Amino acid sequence: MNLDQFSNYARQRVDCYLKQTLDLYQPAASLQTAMDYSLFNGGKRIRPMLTYASAALFAEPTPLTDACAAAIESIHAYSLIHDDLPAMDDDDLRRGKPTCHIQFDEATAILAGDALQTFAFELLSCPSLNQAQRQLQLIQELARASGRHGMVTGQMIDLSNVGQDINIQALEEMHAHKTGALIRASVRMGAISVGLEDANQLAALDDYANAIGLAFQVQDDIIDITSDTQTLGKTQFADADANKPTYPKLLGLEGAKKLAKNLNQQAIEKISPFGDAAQPLIELANYIIGRNH
Amino acid sequence: MNLDQFSNYARQRVDCYLKQTLDLYQPAASLQTAMDYSLFNGGKRIRPMLTYASAALFAEPTPLTDACAAAIESIHAYSLIHDDLPAMDDDDLRRGKPTCHIQFDEATAILAGDALQTFAFELLSCPSLNQAQRQLQLIQELARASGRHGMVTGQMIDLSNVGQDINIQALEEMHAHKTGALIRASVRMGAISVGLEDANQLAALDDYANAIGLAFQVQDDIIDITSDTQTLGKTQFADADANKPTYPKLLGLEGAKKLAKNLNQQAIEKISPFGDAAQPLIELANYIIGRNH
Repeated sequence: MNLDQFSNYARQRVDCYLKQTLDLYQPAASLQTAMDYSLFNGGKRIRPMLTYASAALFAEPTPLTDACAAAIESIHAYSLIHDDLPAMDDDDLRRGKPTCHIQFDEATAILAGDALQTFAFELLSCPSLNQAQRQLQLIQELARASGRHGMVTGQMIDLSNVGQDINIQALEEMHAHKTGALIRASVRMGAISVGLEDANQLAALDDYANAIGLAFQVQDDIIDITSDTQTLGKTQFADADANKPTYPKLLGLEGAKKLAKNLNQQAIEKISPFGDAAQPLIELANYIIGRNH
Repeated sequence: MNLDQFSNYARQRVDCYLKQTLDLYQPAASLQTAMDYSLFNGGKRIRPMLTYASAALFAEPTPLTDACAAAIESIHAYSLIHDDLPAMDDDDLRRGKPTCHIQFDEATAILAGDALQTFAFELLSCPSLNQAQRQLQLIQELARASGRHGMVTGQMIDLSNVGQDINIQALEEMHAHKTGALIRASVRMGAISVGLEDANQLAALDDYANAIGLAFQVQDDIIDITSDTQTLGKTQFADADANKPTYPKLLGLEGAKKLAKNLNQQAIEKISPFGDAAQPLIELANYIIGRNH
């Protein structure tokens, strides 16, 4: 499978699982419209791809892998909705479409985000998955990656950085929380879902994930200034205009490109011991620094 | 133990557990300040009282009971923060103090709410509790009570009701989701945390919880028009002024008081078979319709 094929495979699998599990509950119909809008808005499904690719290093992905991929994507969707709110980044456009609070209203967007977060934990605690010990471990992974030890704190640091002069270490700490933690969880949870317990192998996956997580963010900063609004699907120079610290600002555009490339190489080295099975993860790493949107 | 003593017992127990588990994580320091502010703002801890009282029907409350009480209170605190936001109920005052977005800012309030929700699931998935099967069941209970099948949908219905003429059934459906589902979870989770599996006993607890959940809301509507702002700790007539449907509007003040009393009696009948051990739950039911704030 090449990357396009793998992307289609992961998207179809996670979308199918999400549609089956987010079944209609009539009193919540209008809430679910907003949840659906944000879950199925053409997102690249990078995190589910990582989850399936990581599982596939060790075994065929299982329904528990599907639950992980769907839960992570649900957390990701919630974070984007809240991120875009007027009190936060105040973005009107996401993936070329109106953001949730523009399409509906602010209250609906807050609640749809809240419900998508809960939905992630509902999915992972589903009794029919029937692997209590492993499910519990996965819930703990996701809670720690997305809450105060991870993503939410990254968002908080990000907001406090606006207009500040910060150094490269502080920028890295912010990204490690804001996007890195959930990307690491995507990789770890895929492997855990099919039974990986070996600490050394988990550590190698952590190193891979940390490197691509940071590369992803460096590349985001690069395309924020090199891609136009149409390609990007969101406003060009959004971060630069918001007076946020970025890698090109701190390192120059060439310096940022070099960093992304180095991180990509680090990532690939860490998973090369897994052999041929690591090919999707390698292609994903290459995609992350090659993309222009 | 009379109700005051039981209230102190439950408060001390859940507060101690919350303080121990919400340990300082330096990068999240400012986020945690807002989480602490909202978790420890003099809330009545009615849900933890229900959880401990329900557990005590069957056995001594355990650390898993503590985790349930703390997780439910964390969900409750998150819901109040988001509820108070300008895009939602736009309240400046909560329990006599500035609401989270007034004390800090809107972005911090959104994120503190988000992180408190995640914290609830972090608590319940803690590996040291060492009861995977039961923990998973409790996580599923909490997710279903607080997400799209419960609280968030209730909030969504509530917002769509502003300025609408709705009947008593629609008002009841809204409250059953908005506050009823989490109150029922408080009672159920207490019992499950100490091992209750008997479906008939769980059904009796459900009936008790549904009755007091609704009584709680009817009483809230009553005190919104009968207590002054100082006693209430929030703005008097807030709901009446917001043109929201309330029980006194639909049934008259006397009709609402009668309904609260009937619900109270129903609740007590449902748990009387549990004998002396049900005394705290009975006193809680009486407190709910006796309170003036």
